[in-house]
Amino acid sequence: MIMSDFLQQLDDSHHRVDAALEHYLGRLSHNGEPLAQAMRYGALLGGKRLRPFLVYQTGRLFGVSDDSLDVPAAAVECIHAYSLIHDDLPAMDDDDLRRGRPTCHIKFGETTAILAGDALQTLAFSILADGAMPAVDDRDRIAMISALASASGAEGMCLGQVLDLAAEGHQVGLDALEEVHRHKTGALISAAVVLGALAAGEPGRQAMPHLMRYASAIGLAFQVQDDILDVVGDSSTTGKRQGADQQLGKSTYPALLGLDMARAKARDLYQESLASLECISTLGYDTSALISLARYIIERDK
Amino acid sequence: MIMSDFLQQLDDSHHRVDAALEHYLGRLSHNGEPLAQAMRYGALLGGKRLRPFLVYQTGRLFGVSDDSLDVPAAAVECIHAYSLIHDDLPAMDDDDLRRGRPTCHIKFGETTAILAGDALQTLAFSILADGAMPAVDDRDRIAMISALASASGAEGMCLGQVLDLAAEGHQVGLDALEEVHRHKTGALISAAVVLGALAAGEPGRQAMPHLMRYASAIGLAFQVQDDILDVVGDSSTTGKRQGADQQLGKSTYPALLGLDMARAKARDLYQESLASLECISTLGYDTSALISLARYIIERDK
Repeated sequence: MIMSDFLQQLDDSHHRVDAALEHYLGRLSHNGEPLAQAMRYGALLGGKRLRPFLVYQTGRLFGVSDDSLDVPAAAVECIHAYSLIHDDLPAMDDDDLRRGRPTCHIKFGETTAILAGDALQTLAFSILADGAMPAVDDRDRIAMISALASASGAEGMCLGQVLDLAAEGHQVGLDALEEVHRHKTGALISAAVVLGALAAGEPGRQAMPHLMRYASAIGLAFQVQDDILDVVGDSSTTGKRQGADQQLGKSTYPALLGLDMARAKARDLYQESLASLECISTLGYDTSALISLARYIIERDK
Repeated sequence: MIMSDFLQQLDDSHHRVDAALEHYLGRLSHNGEPLAQAMRYGALLGGKRLRPFLVYQTGRLFGVSDDSLDVPAAAVECIHAYSLIHDDLPAMDDDDLRRGRPTCHIKFGETTAILAGDALQTLAFSILADGAMPAVDDRDRIAMISALASASGAEGMCLGQVLDLAAEGHQVGLDALEEVHRHKTGALISAAVVLGALAAGEPGRQAMPHLMRYASAIGLAFQVQDDILDVVGDSSTTGKRQGADQQLGKSTYPALLGLDMARAKARDLYQESLASLECISTLGYDTSALISLARYIIERDK
């Protein structure tokens, strides 16, 4: 797939999941109030929508309709949005800018931001429990809820954030850094793939080991590239303060490995992701969009 | 049921749900780390365990085994514990004492407290998705997840907290006060009853309207009594600073109605709860424990 086609697909997913999020947020009975406004702001602030894209593309591998995939795509994005709102709080990373715009607590105040994050997390599970997924049976729906919870909580994303904050201000080793990222960002990226596969039922479950390996590789590659962009990126493109990680004394791949070896690491993970997709295409599935995503992840400049 | 038997049952539920919480928290892979410690601290800090008691007693009405009820009881308590941790934060009620002991952020720091709350919410859904409930089918399990999410998020507890904070510092009317409490505490108390009933399948669903009416009445009665205790209670018994609501300028039932009329309101709600239980006992179920709970709620001094 040529990159322009991939970017068009990424854009289509973006619009599709935003429409789903608008639908679920718009249904809230108090949707004009500050809580719902802050939830909307956090959920629709932009971003690349990589996780929803992964849900859609993984489900499509197995012929699942987009209508059914809107549900897990929106749910995963709600978890991601909640985590960004809470990560930006003064007691956490204390960021006032996200994607070039004021963070949720800057715009709505800390109280509302905490509650909007809380309620977005709840909404994720609400959507998964209630959302219309015609082709998905109850067992797979429960497996989706289980997988999303597992990726989000004390053994997934929340743990990653704790490990990340604990590592601030001193250099940690490569293994410790990888553990941070596997939990903090990797777990939810993997969950996106798992949820897309579970929407397909048995065929998705059969391909799961390869899909997990793919997700694990691109999840870590994403973080390595993020670290690289913190060094070489342009704030006006990335929407973040350049050098922010360095200022916070965060351990990064460029800091631990040097810039060249960090880039080599990203390429290795890219190759690893291609190898796992190779196994999936042997099963007869068209993985071209997932290949393009892997390439995009290590080539992106924002 | 005499009050001492009821208190014994309340105590038994307390021990039972604490054992279930210990089980789920103990299974976390990083359970010695600060995040898991803060989650434990928040979840096992004490309290009356009214919500788990409601889950157990509602399920028992229909002959559901306690083994199956441990799952929704623990899940509901995780949501309650997370909400207390977040409510106590500096950006919210800024409380340093909860049940006579340091609040979670005082003991573990604000960052860990926010994340422990987040992860306890996730754990609730994780428990409901994965926990062993032999007699509960997938449809009822999904309905439980849906009900708990609905009670916890932007149309339930989180909304209640926003409304409560928005009402601080000025008197609101009785309807607005009731709207705060129906969301902030009532929704989760109702969810406890709903989850207990759903664990019973069809018989539970049939009795649902009466159970909801009961839960709604005791939920509000609980809050009215809380407001009364803020005025007349003894800090050493309640574990809260006496007059804390008044200091924060919160609207309360005694402030709006006077103490005598607030007490009359609690008694009216008690009668309302008895009337709904009457309907349930007409269906052939033994509601004695639920009657005792209603009485306890308006007679308690802590």
